[in-house]
Amino acid sequence: MPDVVLAVDLGGTNTRVALVDRHREVRATASGPTPGAAGAEAIVTTIVGLAVGLLEANPSSRLFGLGVASAGVVDRARGVIVSSTDTLAGWAGTPLARWLREGMGERLPAGAAIEIQNDVDAHAWGEFRFGAARGASSALVVAVGTGIGAGVIVEGRPLRGARHVAGEIAHLPAPGAESFRCPCGRRGHLEAIGSGVGLHRLYLAAGGDPAVADAKQVVARAARDEIAAAAIARSATAVGRALAGAVSLLDPELVVVTGGVADIGESWWSPMRAAYLAEAIDALQDVELRAGSAGGHAALRGAADAVWEQIEGTA
Amino acid sequence: MPDVVLAVDLGGTNTRVALVDRHREVRATASGPTPGAAGAEAIVTTIVGLAVGLLEANPSSRLFGLGVASAGVVDRARGVIVSSTDTLAGWAGTPLARWLREGMGERLPAGAAIEIQNDVDAHAWGEFRFGAARGASSALVVAVGTGIGAGVIVEGRPLRGARHVAGEIAHLPAPGAESFRCPCGRRGHLEAIGSGVGLHRLYLAAGGDPAVADAKQVVARAARDEIAAAAIARSATAVGRALAGAVSLLDPELVVVTGGVADIGESWWSPMRAAYLAEAIDALQDVELRAGSAGGHAALRGAADAVWEQIEGTA
Repeated sequence: MPDVVLAVDLGGTNTRVALVDRHREVRATASGPTPGAAGAEAIVTTIVGLAVGLLEANPSSRLFGLGVASAGVVDRARGVIVSSTDTLAGWAGTPLARWLREGMGERLPAGAAIEIQNDVDAHAWGEFRFGAARGASSALVVAVGTGIGAGVIVEGRPLRGARHVAGEIAHLPAPGAESFRCPCGRRGHLEAIGSGVGLHRLYLAAGGDPAVADAKQVVARAARDEIAAAAIARSATAVGRALAGAVSLLDPELVVVTGGVADIGESWWSPMRAAYLAEAIDALQDVELRAGSAGGHAALRGAADAVWEQIEGTA
Repeated sequence: MPDVVLAVDLGGTNTRVALVDRHREVRATASGPTPGAAGAEAIVTTIVGLAVGLLEANPSSRLFGLGVASAGVVDRARGVIVSSTDTLAGWAGTPLARWLREGMGERLPAGAAIEIQNDVDAHAWGEFRFGAARGASSALVVAVGTGIGAGVIVEGRPLRGARHVAGEIAHLPAPGAESFRCPCGRRGHLEAIGSGVGLHRLYLAAGGDPAVADAKQVVARAARDEIAAAAIARSATAVGRALAGAVSLLDPELVVVTGGVADIGESWWSPMRAAYLAEAIDALQDVELRAGSAGGHAALRGAADAVWEQIEGTA
């Protein structure tokens, strides 16, 4: 009868749940589409449904707590979603910890720990505890995918910030992004050209084939399409420059870069690193920029670890 | 017979020393020019000379420790200067804590605490403990003067960084700075246009009167010289934009801005604030940007407080 916590990774597209034991090993997982347009109650119902199904399929597990990695800005102390993008309709304001406790009912022991945190923070914590930043005392973990997010670890603890938004590297000024709109509504920010969406936009703005629908397709044709190759390099350069700025402000032991765009490979990493080195001050030239290694379960494991730490009194 | 620590503020131009009592009040001060070109030994001799003079002029003081706020990158744990600009020749590598202990001889009790830190960090700590950031749990304190430096306070403690350079806001990418050289040797960084030196350069680059020798003179003629007024606004805008980026990364409770350029007044603060608001994401629109209030002794008091905290065991 293994002791487990239930971990939830709530993204705009999919919701994943896992049972994670005291050794932080993932014992079982389940997932389903996130009903992002249907409102907060539908989302919570989906989480609870997946959770109950997973617990019933693993009847010997004893549940000790619940850890959630959620899209959006999270007030961790209160377990409430502060704000969110339109991907999750009505998500802002959701008292997630309370609703989950109610939804789980007697399956969750009275007083069991519930930890809600931002998904990028949980992902960063997963890389810090189990992946590429393991053993470091501080790290900047940046996820470059459809959007751009980052989590900051300082002296072994996550930097949350006074308004729960620390690590928002997406909105650093990015030379070359002046004419591109960031999801925050402003122009000139990193995310406007450094994200997957931004990479695709750079391609189209440079006169690329309008039939190309997204960053993945840009990457797929880079070998035979100069405009695609240039867009990848330009997007990667923006990320490298911003990283140099962020590193000079935070001075982390190392930087971990993950996400779908980072997975493009050397055609992205090479100009990204070159831009970092061109920008970074002398004292920061040797900062290691590593690819993530905690794998697809990083956020789930990060979310679970935060609950276990609370239960074990090590948080 | 008041208990005091000796505080030292070592700048490129002047060296100031002070006796600071347990209540963190400055009891006496002395200062003299820094022999910046004469090498590290001459600088330490100057510090010791000023210190001994001050102690002899205040014979009833009992010395408990020594706190130094020094230009350059400082390894606080070892009390060694890691690197420095050319303003202080040969300063890099100086084992300052050891040399000061030797130089002070029996005036400093055996085993007395010595705390060496970066001058901007000490200044930030002074604002945090005694000035505009007092009572906050986190703060970004930015000094905009001849150059640009910043200190970061997180959860009530200074963020030092893995390589002792945390808070280097000067090297954030700054749109509009592409053709200007930063003191770090690269182009496009904030300090290249946001500092006093940068402001002066912006003025000259825009076709200003070549007889105007520095930022102070640019400011003095702004009322009757459109190019001067525009240079101030453009320089301030660069600072405001970079602050928005830094705040989104760090999410401090508030921001304190000090230094000679910030002292220009409303013609600088107004475009700086406007640029901040234009850039900052919604969640960070209400972050307060305050002028420093700890006064000219901020760095001395910050350096002294760090020593008293060590002596009192509260550090």
